[in-house]
Amino acid sequence: MVLEVPVLIARKRDGGELTGDEVRALVGAYVAGDVADAQMAALLMAGVIRGFSDEEATALTEAYIASGDVVDLSDLTGPTVDKHSTGGVGDSTTLVVAPLLAALGCQVAKLSGRGLGHTGGTLDKLEAVPGYRVDLSRDELHAQVERIGLAVAAATADLVPADKRIYALRDVTATVADEALIAASVMSKKIAGGAGHVVLDVKCGDGAFMRTEPEATALARRCVAVGAGHGRRVTAVVTDMGQPLGPAIGNALEVAAAVEVLQGAGDTWLREGCLVLAAEGLALTGVDRTEARRRAEVALDDGSALERFGAWIEAQGGDPAVGDDPWSVLERAPVVRRWQPPDGTVRGLRTQRLGELAGRLGAGRQRPGDDVDPAVGLVVPLQVGAAVDAPVEVHARSEQDADQVVAELADLVDVGEPVEQRPLVLSTVREGDPGVGS
Amino acid sequence: MVLEVPVLIARKRDGGELTGDEVRALVGAYVAGDVADAQMAALLMAGVIRGFSDEEATALTEAYIASGDVVDLSDLTGPTVDKHSTGGVGDSTTLVVAPLLAALGCQVAKLSGRGLGHTGGTLDKLEAVPGYRVDLSRDELHAQVERIGLAVAAATADLVPADKRIYALRDVTATVADEALIAASVMSKKIAGGAGHVVLDVKCGDGAFMRTEPEATALARRCVAVGAGHGRRVTAVVTDMGQPLGPAIGNALEVAAAVEVLQGAGDTWLREGCLVLAAEGLALTGVDRTEARRRAEVALDDGSALERFGAWIEAQGGDPAVGDDPWSVLERAPVVRRWQPPDGTVRGLRTQRLGELAGRLGAGRQRPGDDVDPAVGLVVPLQVGAAVDAPVEVHARSEQDADQVVAELADLVDVGEPVEQRPLVLSTVREGDPGVGS
Repeated sequence: MVLEVPVLIARKRDGGELTGDEVRALVGAYVAGDVADAQMAALLMAGVIRGFSDEEATALTEAYIASGDVVDLSDLTGPTVDKHSTGGVGDSTTLVVAPLLAALGCQVAKLSGRGLGHTGGTLDKLEAVPGYRVDLSRDELHAQVERIGLAVAAATADLVPADKRIYALRDVTATVADEALIAASVMSKKIAGGAGHVVLDVKCGDGAFMRTEPEATALARRCVAVGAGHGRRVTAVVTDMGQPLGPAIGNALEVAAAVEVLQGAGDTWLREGCLVLAAEGLALTGVDRTEARRRAEVALDDGSALERFGAWIEAQGGDPAVGDDPWSVLERAPVVRRWQPPDGTVRGLRTQRLGELAGRLGAGRQRPGDDVDPAVGLVVPLQVGAAVDAPVEVHARSEQDADQVVAELADLVDVGEPVEQRPLVLSTVREGDPGVGS
Repeated sequence: MVLEVPVLIARKRDGGELTGDEVRALVGAYVAGDVADAQMAALLMAGVIRGFSDEEATALTEAYIASGDVVDLSDLTGPTVDKHSTGGVGDSTTLVVAPLLAALGCQVAKLSGRGLGHTGGTLDKLEAVPGYRVDLSRDELHAQVERIGLAVAAATADLVPADKRIYALRDVTATVADEALIAASVMSKKIAGGAGHVVLDVKCGDGAFMRTEPEATALARRCVAVGAGHGRRVTAVVTDMGQPLGPAIGNALEVAAAVEVLQGAGDTWLREGCLVLAAEGLALTGVDRTEARRRAEVALDDGSALERFGAWIEAQGGDPAVGDDPWSVLERAPVVRRWQPPDGTVRGLRTQRLGELAGRLGAGRQRPGDDVDPAVGLVVPLQVGAAVDAPVEVHARSEQDADQVVAELADLVDVGEPVEQRPLVLSTVREGDPGVGS
């Protein structure tokens, strides 16, 4: 097929649609170096403004998958379930949901990335546990999942390399926040990751890519449709990012918050988020949704999820004592400062800026390859609609860092007359729902 | 000024507007290598789809001009007039209009480019005259214009280099056909070229960038507004490209067609186009328009324009005999084939494909740096609305080339029942007209 690249760009510019063959050929030629960065950037911008069709998103996903290796999990004995979040603040759900699903009889072989936002990714959080090893071979991954039900390892460079290159391009060209492009990026990684069932947490609001519920729901629909187009059963839960999901923002702090939930206690919002995702994941494997929810609650409360967590951390080289007494294992920041909000009801929290403050303390990275500081971050035990109770904690590397962050906190917390509590789950999109293409 | 490039791109993506400072800083940073091709391409695509304001187009023009040298013509004694066409097929008007304006007392110091379309540019046409020298120093250019009233030389690399780089980017990213970007590209070259008065021929139709009259008129308005913003008097004539402007398409063939007009004869459409542009150019210098038209007709009919043409060609190293007997000087193609259309009225001509056929014979270039063949091309003595009279001539380098082109001609010429003749001038935009910003 001879690619007339400017002609294809012009068609997209004028609101037309590319065929699946054209999308696949373009991405292939881009990875091969035969399409310039500038051409791909122009095409992406045209598509972001004009909109990509479900067919284009599916073809893009296929092209991403075809650019690299694919993990084959078909020889595993249990139902395979993967879980992904589109990226939020204070979100340590993977640390709870993965062992919870394992305790419920699912197999979770999760390949994860490092964070390139204000806060760390799942791997950064896990590496706050001294000794945790993220580099597993394919054989190690398989064997561990078969033995204890879960493993969380680093995605290698040969998994969807086209997505990696195009994501770097989108990052500098203001073409990140597009539902079709995000769907292709997310779903290509999930499909190449091999799981038969995928539960997605699509974040919506201040701290997320998708700022409004219609945008987030549209992204959720795209992901479910693209998954169905590749024979994967996908449920996408749209959740509120109008406040951090859990109270902790920062790597070790989030591990500790997750362990509290696994111990049957902890933050109620974070626990609810974990229960919703685990129950939807289990339901995808054929369990009735009410029954799935009940089983998930039992597995958190009877310690079986916590037991899986300990086995998992130990299998990957960490100290399983982190599940009993997190701070006997995790590093504490040298400076902990408390800031007490005024009395009243929490009316609003500026999620994104809270995440950025944690990033400024060292919890995230500005550029790929930067180190993250495991110990620093924020604890924000506030929920919109609830009375102010405990103080905000700033965990910092230095007194100066703590001073700077404390000085900004008052702007990010709005306290006053009572308001209603927010719902955590805004909507749930499942295969076969009205409006979900396939 | 710290440039947050993705933020600026996002603003344009979402339909917002950049400030003049932002546009100038972006272009400066792009030329300096601090903004990536991909970022500039994404920004341009966003602007092409969302639209650039007059202020953005003016700032872009300023940034282009500021990127290189500017020609100072202020020490010339006569009124300086420049002429530019947005690029069409069979358009040899510069070869007539420049000496005609000189004969009318104007001074024409024209810097021109080589064609990078299906057919050659003005320099390519002039180089069909053996010995014609396009590389004049600034001093030579000045002295020649002061002595004989005109010079046409190659634009050097230091004239609007930013436009050169961005044009190359637009060419491969489907961002060429935008009125603001074309206006900035055209007007920056004209303003940097130093003339106080500029007459533009904005082409409209099949063989032009602008396919519809509203698009072409919008481009004309932009150019006049941008010129006024820089203190230049500009008139833009929107002309029909629904058929080739002159009968000849090809370098030597177009020189011969232009000489016929300078001899007071020649093709009536081409003569009319030249008269309109020369009269508008003269009128810009303060001469009443009716009087300007009368003087232009006289200067073609009494041989004074032809005399200037001979002096010009001789001054730049060519044989002035080309003005008396073109084919005693120009190279003829070795193969000339004739194709007779069926009897009837010409109902339509496919201008662009006729240009492409001439290009395929060797009259244009596919890539910068390619050689053009001076001798080859087409003569298409047909006008929409007129009866078929003389045959089409194919001037080719080989029998095989001629065969291939002849085989396609029947598709490009529609003959049948009588239709009305087309008007050449669709509209004229002058400073101060309603709808023309400044």
